[in-house]
Amino acid sequence: MNGEKLQSLPLGDIRIEDAFWGKYIRLVKDVILPYQWETLNDNVPDAEPSHCIKNFRIAAGEEKGTFQGAVFQDTDVAKWLEAAAFTLASGGRDEMLESLADETIKLIGKAQCPDGYLNTYYTIQEPDRRWSNLKEGHELYTAGHMIEAAVAYYEATGKDAFLKIVSRFADVICEKFGPDEGQCHGYPGHPEVELALVKLYRATGEKRYLEVSKYFVEQRGVGENYFFQEEKGEKYRQIFPEFKDYSPAYSQSHLPVREQKTAEGHAVRAVYLYCAMADLAYEYRDESLLDACRTLWDNMVKKRMFITGGIGSSGLLERFTTDYDLPNDCNYSESCASIGLALFGRRMAEITGEAKYMDVAETALYNTVLAGIAMDGRSFFYVNPLEVWPDNCLERTSKEH
Amino acid sequence: MNGEKLQSLPLGDIRIEDAFWGKYIRLVKDVILPYQWETLNDNVPDAEPSHCIKNFRIAAGEEKGTFQGAVFQDTDVAKWLEAAAFTLASGGRDEMLESLADETIKLIGKAQCPDGYLNTYYTIQEPDRRWSNLKEGHELYTAGHMIEAAVAYYEATGKDAFLKIVSRFADVICEKFGPDEGQCHGYPGHPEVELALVKLYRATGEKRYLEVSKYFVEQRGVGENYFFQEEKGEKYRQIFPEFKDYSPAYSQSHLPVREQKTAEGHAVRAVYLYCAMADLAYEYRDESLLDACRTLWDNMVKKRMFITGGIGSSGLLERFTTDYDLPNDCNYSESCASIGLALFGRRMAEITGEAKYMDVAETALYNTVLAGIAMDGRSFFYVNPLEVWPDNCLERTSKEH
Repeated sequence: MNGEKLQSLPLGDIRIEDAFWGKYIRLVKDVILPYQWETLNDNVPDAEPSHCIKNFRIAAGEEKGTFQGAVFQDTDVAKWLEAAAFTLASGGRDEMLESLADETIKLIGKAQCPDGYLNTYYTIQEPDRRWSNLKEGHELYTAGHMIEAAVAYYEATGKDAFLKIVSRFADVICEKFGPDEGQCHGYPGHPEVELALVKLYRATGEKRYLEVSKYFVEQRGVGENYFFQEEKGEKYRQIFPEFKDYSPAYSQSHLPVREQKTAEGHAVRAVYLYCAMADLAYEYRDESLLDACRTLWDNMVKKRMFITGGIGSSGLLERFTTDYDLPNDCNYSESCASIGLALFGRRMAEITGEAKYMDVAETALYNTVLAGIAMDGRSFFYVNPLEVWPDNCLERTSKEH
Repeated sequence: MNGEKLQSLPLGDIRIEDAFWGKYIRLVKDVILPYQWETLNDNVPDAEPSHCIKNFRIAAGEEKGTFQGAVFQDTDVAKWLEAAAFTLASGGRDEMLESLADETIKLIGKAQCPDGYLNTYYTIQEPDRRWSNLKEGHELYTAGHMIEAAVAYYEATGKDAFLKIVSRFADVICEKFGPDEGQCHGYPGHPEVELALVKLYRATGEKRYLEVSKYFVEQRGVGENYFFQEEKGEKYRQIFPEFKDYSPAYSQSHLPVREQKTAEGHAVRAVYLYCAMADLAYEYRDESLLDACRTLWDNMVKKRMFITGGIGSSGLLERFTTDYDLPNDCNYSESCASIGLALFGRRMAEITGEAKYMDVAETALYNTVLAGIAMDGRSFFYVNPLEVWPDNCLERTSKEH
């Protein structure tokens, strides 16, 4: 590693106003953010209610009711705030948007537990089961999205209220997880918080956030699999029936990360993990970790990636399968996985200075990430097969997705 | 319909001794029947115990223990007895085989309940839940295989002990099911007993067996779906988790049979039903029912059948999908479905005298049915994709099967 990595310009110093990308940037600001705001607030007549903001109101004590949605429902709020932050940073001020964001952040603060814990599902529904099911509970995953949003909002606006909220939560995580006696020796069932904690370290300078991220990455796949251990816990309760016959490869916990040579399991989980590995390799100048990133990258892009930058060949479990298994018609190629691939490629390009990583990031960006959202800003493709015969995409078949 | 259908010669009057089919006929007698006998009796060291005979011993009160295996585990015993009967009929006497069969029939008689009911799962495990879950319980399906075996054994040996056992059970069915008040207005979740009851009628001359078969076929798909009705029953209890979001098309109960124009749902269920429809069309000289058979046949063989006579394109739910959806690599094409297709084609050929039906039966027989069993007589292909890349057939993917 040659000392410093390539640095991005601050978002506020960039203006993109060309016909192609300018159009998308305006679409986010003018259509997607307002439309998604209505979705988060259950105001879209023909869409299923998301319950996102409502869950926060209930956790904050402002409303009565039960939690509704997926266990990771909070992440939609986080992703909206992160997009709002990027828009504010890159497109100039927008008082209306900023005040909606500030209000939402205030609500998040109220939904935070007195001890700093933050997650509406566990707070409302299962307060006694915190951290009892890292495999399926998505608490650390959700924490990661919150942290990323807070860092982005801090960088966009200079306001630190959200950053303080997530730092308090990150402190809870630092206390809970680690190698010491009395700490939990587990790691996230869905990687994400690892890369977020690196961002939080960079924003705050607090090294403990970097250290717990390193702990999560290095603890993964070591010794008896943690997810089988936690199943024996008194408070453990299965959430997803399809996780029966769980394989550790699904969450890349089948081997210590430096021993992993092929991209395995759930594709989104994999690329989020690899992003954090690259971040940590840089921060700790860790050549063996960077080598692991290079090996996994090469396997993934040379043998398990579609020509469009799509990854994850199987719709069942949204997973990688085997080398050269790249069917056109029944592949999954989730949009989110290609976003993660681009994020990983960008990190590798910044660290190594090699253009090949950015080339793949660009392939994914132009072909699969962009295809994930229609020009109306209101319709989405979650999956990206290369060949679709609509009449053939029946329920309960291999093309159901 | 031109009066009488074509008749087969009695099995005992046929000798097939050519190199091709003769080899298979000897394989059944010399290898498959003895090997399967050991399997039924849990004597094959490297095979999972089947518990088949053991379940009958427990139901007969000869052993203590719990039922083990699938709810339809008894059918393996029935299919062995039917194969033994065909072998005895076509290959000349074999005292050893016949005495094993007679012993087994005696055991089945002992496992029959005093009132005539016969099914080891319900007798041992759920005596209070008889007929409470026609959708999943496979009682009528299992009854059908028993009846077919008994008719075959009667025709092969002239012995009527088994025929009497199943006739008593068929009487239970005739009493339980029908249009009258106090009778159950349901029909099998897995068609099979319908064609078996026609065979029993032909062997015994008892018209009530034909009539209850007609009732099952004509009641199917009429009014509020029976399988949704029975779920409200006090004794109903779900057996298969994968039947969540049950669709009536899965069991061809989405429409009255004469209104069904396309082959839908679980392929084996479909072809067993169509066989019974053809049988009943002939017995009642029912042109509208025969027309329904012609329509379903044409849809199936012109638009939903592989060049090998394989049917059922999707591994998920072993189902038909849509017209012209015939992938080479991820198709299911269960051997059993092709057997059912051949049985249906043979019936249609006998009734109409048209060779085109026998042509398809022959395609299925030579290409998919034969491929279902290896020349060692001990290894089987349950599914028949046209293209297999073994490294790619991973668990929890669309090629898992």
